[in-house]
Amino acid sequence: MINIGVIGYGYWGPNVVRNFNNAEGARVVAVCDKDQEILKKVMKANPGVLAVASVDDITASKNIDVVAIVTSVSSHYELARKALENGKHVFIEKPFTATAAEAASLIELAENRKLKIMVDHTFLFTGAVRTIKELIDNKTLGDIFYYDSVRVNLGLFQHDVNVVWDLAPHDFAIMNYLINEKPMYIAACGKSHINHLEDIAYITAHFNSNILAHFSVNWMSPVKIRHVLIGGEKKMLVWDDINPDEKIKVYDKGVVVTTKQGIYDMLVSYHTGDVLAPHVSQIEALKLECEHFVDCIVNDKKPINDGYSGLEVVRMLEACDRSMRDRGRMVRVHSG
Amino acid sequence: MINIGVIGYGYWGPNVVRNFNNAEGARVVAVCDKDQEILKKVMKANPGVLAVASVDDITASKNIDVVAIVTSVSSHYELARKALENGKHVFIEKPFTATAAEAASLIELAENRKLKIMVDHTFLFTGAVRTIKELIDNKTLGDIFYYDSVRVNLGLFQHDVNVVWDLAPHDFAIMNYLINEKPMYIAACGKSHINHLEDIAYITAHFNSNILAHFSVNWMSPVKIRHVLIGGEKKMLVWDDINPDEKIKVYDKGVVVTTKQGIYDMLVSYHTGDVLAPHVSQIEALKLECEHFVDCIVNDKKPINDGYSGLEVVRMLEACDRSMRDRGRMVRVHSG
Amino acid sequence: MINIGVIGYGYWGPNVVRNFNNAEGARVVAVCDKDQEILKKVMKANPGVLAVASVDDITASKNIDVVAIVTSVSSHYELARKALENGKHVFIEKPFTATAAEAASLIELAENRKLKIMVDHTFLFTGAVRTIKELIDNKTLGDIFYYDSVRVNLGLFQHDVNVVWDLAPHDFAIMNYLINEKPMYIAACGKSHINHLEDIAYITAHFNSNILAHFSVNWMSPVKIRHVLIGGEKKMLVWDDINPDEKIKVYDKGVVVTTKQGIYDMLVSYHTGDVLAPHVSQIEALKLECEHFVDCIVNDKKPINDGYSGLEVVRMLEACDRSMRDRGRMVRVHSG
Amino acid sequence: MINIGVIGYGYWGPNVVRNFNNAEGARVVAVCDKDQEILKKVMKANPGVLAVASVDDITASKNIDVVAIVTSVSSHYELARKALENGKHVFIEKPFTATAAEAASLIELAENRKLKIMVDHTFLFTGAVRTIKELIDNKTLGDIFYYDSVRVNLGLFQHDVNVVWDLAPHDFAIMNYLINEKPMYIAACGKSHINHLEDIAYITAHFNSNILAHFSVNWMSPVKIRHVLIGGEKKMLVWDDINPDEKIKVYDKGVVVTTKQGIYDMLVSYHTGDVLAPHVSQIEALKLECEHFVDCIVNDKKPINDGYSGLEVVRMLEACDRSMRDRGRMVRVHSG
Repeated sequence: MINIGVIGYGYWGPNVVRNFNNAEGARVVAVCDKDQEILKKVMKANPGVLAVASVDDITASKNIDVVAIVTSVSSHYELARKALENGKHVFIEKPFTATAAEAASLIELAENRKLKIMVDHTFLFTGAVRTIKELIDNKTLGDIFYYDSVRVNLGLFQHDVNVVWDLAPHDFAIMNYLINEKPMYIAACGKSHINHLEDIAYITAHFNSNILAHFSVNWMSPVKIRHVLIGGEKKMLVWDDINPDEKIKVYDKGVVVTTKQGIYDMLVSYHTGDVLAPHVSQIEALKLECEHFVDCIVNDKKPINDGYSGLEVVRMLEACDRSMRDRGRMVRVHSG
Repeated sequence: MINIGVIGYGYWGPNVVRNFNNAEGARVVAVCDKDQEILKKVMKANPGVLAVASVDDITASKNIDVVAIVTSVSSHYELARKALENGKHVFIEKPFTATAAEAASLIELAENRKLKIMVDHTFLFTGAVRTIKELIDNKTLGDIFYYDSVRVNLGLFQHDVNVVWDLAPHDFAIMNYLINEKPMYIAACGKSHINHLEDIAYITAHFNSNILAHFSVNWMSPVKIRHVLIGGEKKMLVWDDINPDEKIKVYDKGVVVTTKQGIYDMLVSYHTGDVLAPHVSQIEALKLECEHFVDCIVNDKKPINDGYSGLEVVRMLEACDRSMRDRGRMVRVHSG
Repeated sequence: MINIGVIGYGYWGPNVVRNFNNAEGARVVAVCDKDQEILKKVMKANPGVLAVASVDDITASKNIDVVAIVTSVSSHYELARKALENGKHVFIEKPFTATAAEAASLIELAENRKLKIMVDHTFLFTGAVRTIKELIDNKTLGDIFYYDSVRVNLGLFQHDVNVVWDLAPHDFAIMNYLINEKPMYIAACGKSHINHLEDIAYITAHFNSNILAHFSVNWMSPVKIRHVLIGGEKKMLVWDDINPDEKIKVYDKGVVVTTKQGIYDMLVSYHTGDVLAPHVSQIEALKLECEHFVDCIVNDKKPINDGYSGLEVVRMLEACDRSMRDRGRMVRVHSG
Repeated sequence: MINIGVIGYGYWGPNVVRNFNNAEGARVVAVCDKDQEILKKVMKANPGVLAVASVDDITASKNIDVVAIVTSVSSHYELARKALENGKHVFIEKPFTATAAEAASLIELAENRKLKIMVDHTFLFTGAVRTIKELIDNKTLGDIFYYDSVRVNLGLFQHDVNVVWDLAPHDFAIMNYLINEKPMYIAACGKSHINHLEDIAYITAHFNSNILAHFSVNWMSPVKIRHVLIGGEKKMLVWDDINPDEKIKVYDKGVVVTTKQGIYDMLVSYHTGDVLAPHVSQIEALKLECEHFVDCIVNDKKPINDGYSGLEVVRMLEACDRSMRDRGRMVRVHSG
């Protein structure tokens, strides 16, 4: 039985507790929160679980195998370091850390101690993302031409991070998972209208291949949009995450190029066929994610959302900030 | 009676002929096209109209007051120059010219001869744009925070211009008209997947004010999207041009900032009220545009879509090309 | 403090418990369920509450003022009768009873003992229905011409009632509340495809006035539709309950009749104006309903969803069954 | 070459002329209209065609093989009778005639003279209907459980026919074509709010089989809806004719019945799979219809929309009127 200690019981913490408790072979044994009122809630909702105010009672507990860190990003590094140094596996909220250096340091620490890190990019475990992953991997779409993502809504304005750090981690993690290729360059531009933090931003990611990726994130949109367009050589895909019934549509549409004699006689036309909305699994993503982490620990596997995937996202976020400070200049994501 | 000669009778030409013919105080007296089959069509559809193969029969005709140039952009400058030099007013397809230099030269020529130029940015005369213009001008939206435009569909691949020159002229003209401020800088990035011409591009426009504008244009989208989001300080607006009945929605939504003591105690919240879809006039835009040109000529007024507005669009298109060639760097739209 | 005992803790019971507990001046003191497993859940979720297996421990308890009956319809009459005979107010699931005779008998019993009955037509307390009620009462729509309701989805097949008794109680209660007029006649026709219970039915309701009401209910639709059209003399309204953001749209559309000389020269035309989606309150309907019942008991008011409104719905359901058995013949809802 | 004479050149006539002219093996040689202004239009648009004011110049012309009657329903019988008596095939607007007796008389006349009648139920030739026909005929949907049609919009109020005769002919013809079974009984109820003609009506059709069909027609709806639900044993289908891109969706959804021991242990569950929007042909329906008529005449085939199919629709319309006059009673469509 894997014993889990959870730090942070705000909006997301109760979901983490519930799903680790339901995962076979795991149970939550302790929950930590600074707020006494919240600790009372913890006790009421989870009778057998230890409710503690000090993080050390989690990170240093001999009874705990995994520390789940569900706090704001600024505290991630310190808490994860303590947990790893005490020999605990770490499940950690996204974004992984506040800097790529912190992320790299945690990965090294975990590797030295043969411990696992999972960064909570829950979206990777949704039915929608798993379906798209399959459609890309089995070459249904063909070569990918572009990845176009829109994630906009009204609020939430956070006091400590801009809209990029708030919304783009989802999209970066999803894209990195779907497309087996790391972005080389990032360009971003944003504006702040209410305080000094950007509330709207547009980001492009550039690859060694011919893929172009674009992300629109916005806290000031009157409508909520969660829309991803993926253009493939053979088929094209729309993922509308707001649509409850037909989240994914695969269009048998594309460009047909007929070359007659050399490139200048190239004829471009289009083909249009059926539209398929594949059935998408409704299983709770966090449930699958928690089970995946338990499986990775028990059977010594690498999580699909391990520290490296978390680090990659942080690198992209840092690149966005650098680019936004430098007039939208294209900046390298990877040095070297 | 203003006599009009039309050069080019392809896809758009017949609409121009019909609408100038219906405009009070004007009539089409001659149509020119290189294609003999098309000239037969002209004659069948317009019994009293002269159908000619040579442009000089239009540009040099004593009987003609206005030359409408409905040909591809590469021929615009030469045709317009001839027409102006012969003392004709010019109605000209968008984009105005292939270079800003050509546009400036035509404007100068027209001014010297006291002739009018109208660039056919038809969208400015749609019910949707006229309604939005009113909502901005009468301060219903308050200060504008951002302008976000998406114009994507499958095809049409043109052999001579990229997706920016094909689709963005609409959006640049519309935004320039709606927002009484000229963009200072443009950054753009695009990719080509089929031939050497960009088939997808993302553009940001930057102003002296705090407005951020963004344009997504794409020939490789399986779905047709015509979507503009305008974020205002007081209200926000969505223009969905695909929606036949509720093209424009005004959201009584926004950010409410309550400052307690100094900026760090700033409290951000949201208000959410009714949504209004104002009735939008269905009058054919080109009809209003043709009537506007006749009115401008007869009463010596400045068209809202005169040469300068056409020049501004061409400058932005050129800036896009420069930026795309230079890794998305922000480039000045106006020198000086 | 009003003490409440709840009978039935299946799908809906926990919501009733939670909302009565949150209502000021009320608290749930006991919950009854036949199932021992469910009683364990009750105890875990509601530490201070008595969990009992026998209904008499609720209906005969001296400590209880209100009995909430959240069981299947066949048990309603017997449980409500016991509760009323023991001097308890009754909150009861919809439909009120299995027959109009039972409903009338319970109403009489309650009146004799000066007790309140509330039938749980929760929809009356939704923001959508409250908004529509206001628009009708303040004459925004003008005289009502028709009421057209569609409530269809895949399943749920119930083993004991047909699709009319399952779905139409919502719509009958809503319409009766919105339109201050009782239907005189009902005609209904349905079909059963899986077992002997109708899984699809169409119902019309006829009034002394010129209103025509129609209801489509269907367990075999691949798509979930919750759509109400209300045609008014001045304006028309669409309520799309699936739409999360714009549930209600008020169309400034209508017929304009111009009579010249006598009825045969009548000219019919249309006017089309703005569309307004009024902001609809998101407060949980059951919360308002529970508070309303507490208020009615404490201040001796008549609930808007009292026994009479519940009886009216049961009469309409019975009329549907009679009509369906008699080839869709129009049958009287009210005898006398 | 089949020579066609067209009577009536109002809204629909020009389309009929154009499409018969484009059909191989046919040409329009004469057009008749009472209105002199319209005859001028005819001449301008169709230089070689004879424009006449007297119907006899069409029906009695030796040069004409087919008379296309594109006038209002009250004139259909007299014009068609003349045409048939003069040995002409007849293409005739829907609804076929004003009474079933007239329709039967025309059919007899045509059969005696070995002439063809085609009733212009254009919808049967749309890509949507042809696709659905195929899905039903090849058993993709399995046995049909119900057919549910909604055709509502604002206006057009006609002065001579009610909403049933205006809108339902489309739906009756489509359903009859799709489902190879004649309705036995019709029940209908409607209301008139503006003049004496019903502006809203609900119709059910009953078959020897277990299919239930329902039609909602309404001139007083603020929104335009063209929506057909077809519930099949294996799959279910939605046809949304307003949707430009995905008119038809086939849902792999249905009821799964597992019988354990006898009917009372029957277990009902649901399966939910992919949704497919098949590509629907965009070829103009009237073009295919005109070609079909030419083919039927040349090769002596029976049109899918012959006089009998037109008669069936008229019988259903008459049954609607009888039922509406008799309190929605179910009336026989076929006597005997």
